[in-house]
Amino acid sequence: MPDLSPVLDHLDSDRERALARLFELLRFRSISTDPAYDGECRAAAEWLAADLTGIGADTRVAPTQGHPMVVANDLTADGPHLLFYGHYDVQPVAPLELWDADPFDPRVVTRDDGSQYLSGRGAADDKGQLMTFVEACRAYKATHGKLPCKITILLEGEEESGGASLPPFLEANRDELTASIALICDTGMWNASTPAITTMLRGNLAEQVTIHAASRDLHSGMYGGAAANPIPVLTRILADMHDDSGRVTIPEFYEGVSKISGNLKAQWDGLGFDAGEFLGEAGLALPAGETAYTALEQIWARPTAEVNGIWGGYTGAGFKTVIAAEAHAKVSFRLVGDQDQDAIRAAFRQFITDRLPSDCRAEFVARSGGKATVMPLSDPAFEKARQALSDEWGVEAAFIGCGGSIPVVGFFKSLLGMDSLLIGFGLDDDCIHSPNEKYEMASFTKGARSWVRVLDALAK
Amino acid sequence: MPDLSPVLDHLDSDRERALARLFELLRFRSISTDPAYDGECRAAAEWLAADLTGIGADTRVAPTQGHPMVVANDLTADGPHLLFYGHYDVQPVAPLELWDADPFDPRVVTRDDGSQYLSGRGAADDKGQLMTFVEACRAYKATHGKLPCKITILLEGEEESGGASLPPFLEANRDELTASIALICDTGMWNASTPAITTMLRGNLAEQVTIHAASRDLHSGMYGGAAANPIPVLTRILADMHDDSGRVTIPEFYEGVSKISGNLKAQWDGLGFDAGEFLGEAGLALPAGETAYTALEQIWARPTAEVNGIWGGYTGAGFKTVIAAEAHAKVSFRLVGDQDQDAIRAAFRQFITDRLPSDCRAEFVARSGGKATVMPLSDPAFEKARQALSDEWGVEAAFIGCGGSIPVVGFFKSLLGMDSLLIGFGLDDDCIHSPNEKYEMASFTKGARSWVRVLDALAK
Repeated sequence: MPDLSPVLDHLDSDRERALARLFELLRFRSISTDPAYDGECRAAAEWLAADLTGIGADTRVAPTQGHPMVVANDLTADGPHLLFYGHYDVQPVAPLELWDADPFDPRVVTRDDGSQYLSGRGAADDKGQLMTFVEACRAYKATHGKLPCKITILLEGEEESGGASLPPFLEANRDELTASIALICDTGMWNASTPAITTMLRGNLAEQVTIHAASRDLHSGMYGGAAANPIPVLTRILADMHDDSGRVTIPEFYEGVSKISGNLKAQWDGLGFDAGEFLGEAGLALPAGETAYTALEQIWARPTAEVNGIWGGYTGAGFKTVIAAEAHAKVSFRLVGDQDQDAIRAAFRQFITDRLPSDCRAEFVARSGGKATVMPLSDPAFEKARQALSDEWGVEAAFIGCGGSIPVVGFFKSLLGMDSLLIGFGLDDDCIHSPNEKYEMASFTKGARSWVRVLDALAK
Repeated sequence: MPDLSPVLDHLDSDRERALARLFELLRFRSISTDPAYDGECRAAAEWLAADLTGIGADTRVAPTQGHPMVVANDLTADGPHLLFYGHYDVQPVAPLELWDADPFDPRVVTRDDGSQYLSGRGAADDKGQLMTFVEACRAYKATHGKLPCKITILLEGEEESGGASLPPFLEANRDELTASIALICDTGMWNASTPAITTMLRGNLAEQVTIHAASRDLHSGMYGGAAANPIPVLTRILADMHDDSGRVTIPEFYEGVSKISGNLKAQWDGLGFDAGEFLGEAGLALPAGETAYTALEQIWARPTAEVNGIWGGYTGAGFKTVIAAEAHAKVSFRLVGDQDQDAIRAAFRQFITDRLPSDCRAEFVARSGGKATVMPLSDPAFEKARQALSDEWGVEAAFIGCGGSIPVVGFFKSLLGMDSLLIGFGLDDDCIHSPNEKYEMASFTKGARSWVRVLDALAK
């Protein structure tokens, strides 16, 4: 077994070059949902492939129907075969005026207390996180000439835009990509000092709905009072989707939702989660969800129905007294346990249709989603990784839940039969998907050191 | 009293030149709500001033804080003093892609049955309508060298954009503009063959509301379930604004709303209004308002609360799982009887504020509006004008209501103590404020002939 210490020392001494490499990657405007940036996505993939080739991995940029995959293999080690997954695409940056600086001109910012963070779109989600693993591998190779485990690295470019290319790519490359377990670096720590392994993930389901009424926009003076207005029709139906206790009222919505175990609930209660602090960072104060559950349960263990966007009628400057011909909403659901996305999609559409008044009809556009996931903590890999993280950070690492969806976890399980070890170093205040995204310098440097220790632990 | 027939004959023989004049006026892109078209508004005003000077009126383009007024006086007649009001500004044209042709390149279109209409923005609202009066005056002057009544013409440029300049202008020019009655050509016929005088107008009141929640857009994976989402907060409150019978639930909203008289209700019932046909023209079928009232009452005699626009969160292509920081709506009210706009504005704001959950606050922007108006049918001018219209169209003219607001009517009454004779030749399918606005050729030609007869009748 190669010695750990020189690998960690190499990481520390190579820090400035590692940062320069990450900043090169962050400068690519790899916004996968906007076709205007297709070239930037490809350029980011090619940069990563060149970097991994430089480490000595057998690397290729694999085409898909959308953005390409980067696949790199370094399989000379004796240890178990591990698949590392990350994504090089990023979220859009609007509203641009709320950023303190160009989202694609990354910077190191030093706070008054001396702590530092890396600023820019993708710094945390997911370029900064994926590079912690790449730097760990680079340090192993530079120090010992080889890795402790067989490693396959898969980097996708559509995580932020539906990920349609991933399932067929997994199926077409099943043998190459199936390992003993997957390592995914796209999650967070429990807090700035406590590392964590995420063992529960909510699923996701998204729908766009349009309510149609009149055949054209109408003058509210001439028609107001008699003509169906699709905006209040939509608002009434969306308002009906929750009861006063915050429960979703769509029939059968809670089918497959189970209570968390008493053990896990006890562990979560012991984490000392401060809902006020969590919400306060976002300018809020009180949990707004189901009144029967704690805030931690609301975001980790309970399903939701959210309106992510709404628009209709005149929305420009000034005023226009129209009755609109149509109104639109983007609605998404967070799923837990065994909730069935197809059944919920159908129930949502029926819920809307059942409530349409005369002269209105609804039109739907489906978006892909993923089921919720619960990891098998009985697999010894989880405890080994938890110990490795605890050693690096000097504090007991936690098993936690996560409110977000990482559909790849479900695909790895359903298509490749593979569980996932979700280890990430993001913080709640990293502003992922928002203006001024950042990643702590400590997340980047100790994150890379953590992966060195995790690979060492999993090799044993 | 000058003879009527040669004036009517002159109108008929001058028809092509009258059309050419109207088309010159329609080509000005006088969209008053958009500062980009300030120059086009001024050019339209100057074109009108030159045309009225050409008829022999003492004309000026009077500056205001916004778009200028055109004022023309021809006061040599023995008859009573009448003030004619119209507006040269027009609504925006978006969505442009729904127009069959350039909105500012007017055309005559001939239907299969030989009937014709004039197509273009402003054809009906209000350039085509105001030119019916100008052409009537021109024909009188060309035939007899003078008008039968003293005439002051006032043409404003902010009717479609709040009309803030009008009240101070009326006050500053009270002596010049106060006549025995005002003539306003901005309303419609009962149907294509039946002329009408509008004797009831709904008032209007508009508000923009913004619901603020978190200090920034949030990731719905990380925060969904626990963070307040301003979109469902807004939709719940707006949904709450009507009960199941279509009544507005804002406290005291119906203060000042009186039932229409039995006589008027009987006359309206006798009009044979076909709600299905009226709504069918807009692709609808059933009255959507208060279930306790007929469709005609819903649009003429009952107040409304309408959402004219709504927006919040991600509304672009694709999907973004955000919880928005804010959500917005443009809400307007149609007022009747003695409803007090200030009291209703305050009650609406209180209604919103009372329903805000924790962590949300509301912000309001007030828009100006006008009270409802009911005309004094005891004034003989109404019956004289009704007879004149009946003579021209060969069918009994109707006294009708109108769902829209014409704030100038309220200002004429409150600031100048003057009632208004609302005579217009628009039809319900003229698509005012919508793409493909049009004005019937018959409205234009028989409209001008109608004004000749009305001026003659009012002079006696």
